Amino acid sequence: MMIQIRPDRFLQDLHTLRQFGAAGVGKGVVRPAYSDPDIAAREWLAERYADAGLKTRFDPVGSVWGLAKGQSLLIGSHSDSQPEGGWLDGALGVVCGLEIARAAMEAGGPAVSAVSFQDEEGRFGVTTGSRVWSGATDLKSADRLTDTQGLSFADARARMRHLAGDFVDYKRFTGFLEAHIEQGPWLYEAGEAVGVVTDIVGIRDMRITFEGEQNHAGTTPMHRRRDPLQAMARFQVLIAERFRNVVTPQTVWTTGHVDVHPGAHSIVPGRCTFSMQWRDGETERLKKMEEIIRDTAGEVAEDGGFSVSTSDLVGIEPVPMDARMQAALGDAAEDVAPGRWRRMQSGALHDAASVARLMPVAMLFVPSINGISHAFAEDTREEDLVTGLQVMAQAVERMSVALAA
Amino acid sequence: MMIQIRPDRFLQDLHTLRQFGAAGVGKGVVRPAYSDPDIAAREWLAERYADAGLKTRFDPVGSVWGLAKGQSLLIGSHSDSQPEGGWLDGALGVVCGLEIARAAMEAGGPAVSAVSFQDEEGRFGVTTGSRVWSGATDLKSADRLTDTQGLSFADARARMRHLAGDFVDYKRFTGFLEAHIEQGPWLYEAGEAVGVVTDIVGIRDMRITFEGEQNHAGTTPMHRRRDPLQAMARFQVLIAERFRNVVTPQTVWTTGHVDVHPGAHSIVPGRCTFSMQWRDGETERLKKMEEIIRDTAGEVAEDGGFSVSTSDLVGIEPVPMDARMQAALGDAAEDVAPGRWRRMQSGALHDAASVARLMPVAMLFVPSINGISHAFAEDTREEDLVTGLQVMAQAVERMSVALAA
Repeated sequence: MMIQIRPDRFLQDLHTLRQFGAAGVGKGVVRPAYSDPDIAAREWLAERYADAGLKTRFDPVGSVWGLAKGQSLLIGSHSDSQPEGGWLDGALGVVCGLEIARAAMEAGGPAVSAVSFQDEEGRFGVTTGSRVWSGATDLKSADRLTDTQGLSFADARARMRHLAGDFVDYKRFTGFLEAHIEQGPWLYEAGEAVGVVTDIVGIRDMRITFEGEQNHAGTTPMHRRRDPLQAMARFQVLIAERFRNVVTPQTVWTTGHVDVHPGAHSIVPGRCTFSMQWRDGETERLKKMEEIIRDTAGEVAEDGGFSVSTSDLVGIEPVPMDARMQAALGDAAEDVAPGRWRRMQSGALHDAASVARLMPVAMLFVPSINGISHAFAEDTREEDLVTGLQVMAQAVERMSVALAA
Repeated sequence: MMIQIRPDRFLQDLHTLRQFGAAGVGKGVVRPAYSDPDIAAREWLAERYADAGLKTRFDPVGSVWGLAKGQSLLIGSHSDSQPEGGWLDGALGVVCGLEIARAAMEAGGPAVSAVSFQDEEGRFGVTTGSRVWSGATDLKSADRLTDTQGLSFADARARMRHLAGDFVDYKRFTGFLEAHIEQGPWLYEAGEAVGVVTDIVGIRDMRITFEGEQNHAGTTPMHRRRDPLQAMARFQVLIAERFRNVVTPQTVWTTGHVDVHPGAHSIVPGRCTFSMQWRDGETERLKKMEEIIRDTAGEVAEDGGFSVSTSDLVGIEPVPMDARMQAALGDAAEDVAPGRWRRMQSGALHDAASVARLMPVAMLFVPSINGISHAFAEDTREEDLVTGLQVMAQAVERMSVALAA
């Protein structure tokens, strides 16, 4: 048996999928979880699974499955998009799963199932569909999640109730494989075709609040001020210096949200709340960074007479990829694209991180042009898409041997 | 003739005035321009002017006047408050004007008129009532101003149409005197009773925008980021250093408003817009600070690959107080509170700055406990209020001689 993937059919399906919720701007899509285009895309996908000879299933949260008989490898990702998203984020992994399951069926084996998880992009939570399926979040808790408009997850998933069957028993799968665009610049800048993911980085996320003294911007002399925006600015500059000896080139940290109260030109602010998020592949480093953050915030507060408080720390642990599956992907990459691949971390969270609770998982990346993602401009050269598919297909044969061993 | 002010009557009127819109929290008031409590307070004030023997007038924007016969000195301030204001901000100067005009009338001279300007606190503009009266803003432009709820100045002032007469001819006044709480900490910290204002500082105000590149907070390495929030933080730290050799202890600068776009924990911001306001008594220094601000913003932008843009610069020039009136206030202060007064700048804008377009003006400050203002907690010891009134009353006699000379 030898899987014969068909690049033309694969690309055709990818382009068909992007018509669901096409933004009308480049190849961009607007296909958030449970929107009409998202549901229509999932129904189209179920038909493709059925055409391929797979048994189709929608689970209670709207993830759609194409199931091979007996024990099988599972391949997939998600077909919901960001509010303003690209055509490949999630869709690539879903159509890779479809094509490889289809080609494997045509070849008479190995057994490959396919999936498109629901709400990976976090309209309600984060990787909601795969977290509920894997038990990371229970359905009752998930049902209480709301989107930014106040719609509950329970009401959203009720939109697909007419399609819903039971949850799929995870014991039928031997492992999970997810192809994804890198969403960063490393492969593209290096002119490489494939990344074999070593681990999905851990994330720490919290809010920090400096409180000072709200005052008149004309009559309060500088030496009397306790301006928490200045505390935030100093904190940012200090942690950048202090992280220098702790981080790797892959470590990142971000303040993406800032609230300055009361927010008027003529009032010295009384309060500044801001988000602080950091990501790294090692729990130890995440912990060290947390120490630096807390120490620096405390020091800035003490120096300037501020009070400082922090929200609960939200933590997602780093998830290592299965060694045997990584090896299979690496061997296939060296065969298909010799010298044009690397092992690398995933800085973004993916469904594979949820599924890792249940079974061995691995991921493969293809380059993102200019590192752009979560935007209509997101794109990848078609030859790179096909190379990724070929590497994965070849790895599937290697893995089906390795995992059976 | 000798003006005999009556401290008891003065304090009684101040406490009566704070019942209009009493917040129910300490001595706080909620009496924004054109609110029911504001209009009721102005009607009460008109009755007090009439009781004192002054001719009352509401002008077309709702400023209320108590007019002495013939040429007179004008004394007053404003009786509208901040949305959450104190009992003395404006009210002190208004009741000083009432008491001195009343006492002068009882003494048979000198001729003193009184005024409470409308909307000093800027529900619609800034010092709107006195700016319209002085010609700094024409009524047609003012009518198009709106409050934060979208109500127009035209519709707001229509609420007082049944009271409105003509504008008062400014030529009947020989000068304008305004008593006010300091709203800052200098007098209180020094244990002094009176400040004689030398000038009202100039203000420069603009918005600065750094634009970088919006990106995924997990997949974009630090060396590839152009994060405009980091640019803003660096800018704040740099200008604080660079201003050091340029500013005086009275110079102030403030960033009170910050907008980080799109404002999500997991997205490296693409844009950061923030307000930059600075105040000083000297036009030259304001200009030098503007240079430093523009140079530093440009330098930060160039270093980090940002684009930087600025809004139009809003400028209010410094307003010097009349030398003869200052001298009269200083002599009176030395007589009433020897060694317990100082000359000082006003870091806040006041109606006197508008009126200075028309006639000589001067201002007197009394201490603010802990420098607090624009808050329910704003307060001043009653003995300091009375000392301020006494200094002003004595100065009025000196001035009426000086200005007639």
